Amino acid sequence: MLILGIDPGTRMAGYGLIEVSTVGRLKAIAAGAWQLNAKGELAQRLANLAIEFRRVVEAYHPSHLCLELSFLADNPRTALFLGHARGVILSEAYQSGLIISEISATSAKKIISGNGRADKLSIAKLMSAMLGFEFKDLPFDATDALAIAYADAMRMRDSSFQAATSKLNSHSMQSHILEEWQNKRRRKKSNVTFKTLLKQKAL
Amino acid sequence: MLILGIDPGTRMAGYGLIEVSTVGRLKAIAAGAWQLNAKGELAQRLANLAIEFRRVVEAYHPSHLCLELSFLADNPRTALFLGHARGVILSEAYQSGLIISEISATSAKKIISGNGRADKLSIAKLMSAMLGFEFKDLPFDATDALAIAYADAMRMRDSSFQAATSKLNSHSMQSHILEEWQNKRRRKKSNVTFKTLLKQKAL
Repeated sequence: MLILGIDPGTRMAGYGLIEVSTVGRLKAIAAGAWQLNAKGELAQRLANLAIEFRRVVEAYHPSHLCLELSFLADNPRTALFLGHARGVILSEAYQSGLIISEISATSAKKIISGNGRADKLSIAKLMSAMLGFEFKDLPFDATDALAIAYADAMRMRDSSFQAATSKLNSHSMQSHILEEWQNKRRRKKSNVTFKTLLKQKAL
Repeated sequence: MLILGIDPGTRMAGYGLIEVSTVGRLKAIAAGAWQLNAKGELAQRLANLAIEFRRVVEAYHPSHLCLELSFLADNPRTALFLGHARGVILSEAYQSGLIISEISATSAKKIISGNGRADKLSIAKLMSAMLGFEFKDLPFDATDALAIAYADAMRMRDSSFQAATSKLNSHSMQSHILEEWQNKRRRKKSNVTFKTLLKQKAL
């Protein structure tokens, strides 16, 4: 399984690819950043983003995309610009057949470091240690994107683990209910015996 | 020349195609609206918008796209959603080689009716009369989009007219300057004559 994480900003959109092996081992495959504030008209920059996105998808064939959920600041102008880039990525990803999910930066940081407010450098260092790359070679846009992909992988692992354990739990729950019911039957039976004994005594 | 006008909203994105003949006559060619708030995930709806947009471009081959500039309300959530749809359209339009421009709803209404705050029904009626279609057959999303394309055509005509007249004006300006200079020379000459006369008197 190959997860593409994307962290879209107003200046850059970072991307990071993580491979999840069949035994659940994680490895960084590629990472980088696409410039969004280059010269030229808005439409041209958005079209370039679409082309760059398709280039990465065609080169690595990821199965999943995880996009950072935009933190909605008070500024509608920033929100509109972020929306432009996100719209392009979501449309292209869907047309390329990727399985799409989103995660907030806070949730991703919490999954990785236990702290939803961890700074970019700590996250970059953690990712470097966990995914085996030299974090100094990459901009924060790219390490943040790898963190998004990493958090998505962890979230998927946890939910499949939960599904497996809840299956186990529901099975043991059923045996527990069965046991209780049998105990009740046993108690009821003994009560009947006791009552019968009383009746016999009353006779 | 074929102009595609688009009015992206949160519920629908209206589109309208206008043909501008070589003598500057305008005619509505096609109009409609793409649903944006359908069921399904956001990425799917944006991908559908991209596909619908390409379908119209491939069917009619417009040369120009005019997109309504979003009115930035105080709500960043609305701005983010509008940004998604606008991002898809701008990226697709650029990749299809269209000449892209934007116009605000107020400017478009002012160009069409002289009133930047004209209501949707008045605009629909005006468009119906000017472009030759039955406005009752179309939703406001579509008539608004036709109005965007119409205003773009008017703006282009005016700017080319201005360019032509400013060329003429700059020519007449030059003759005006020349005339002034000649008058000055004449006045100067007459002054000289006057002075000469005075001198002659003083003698």
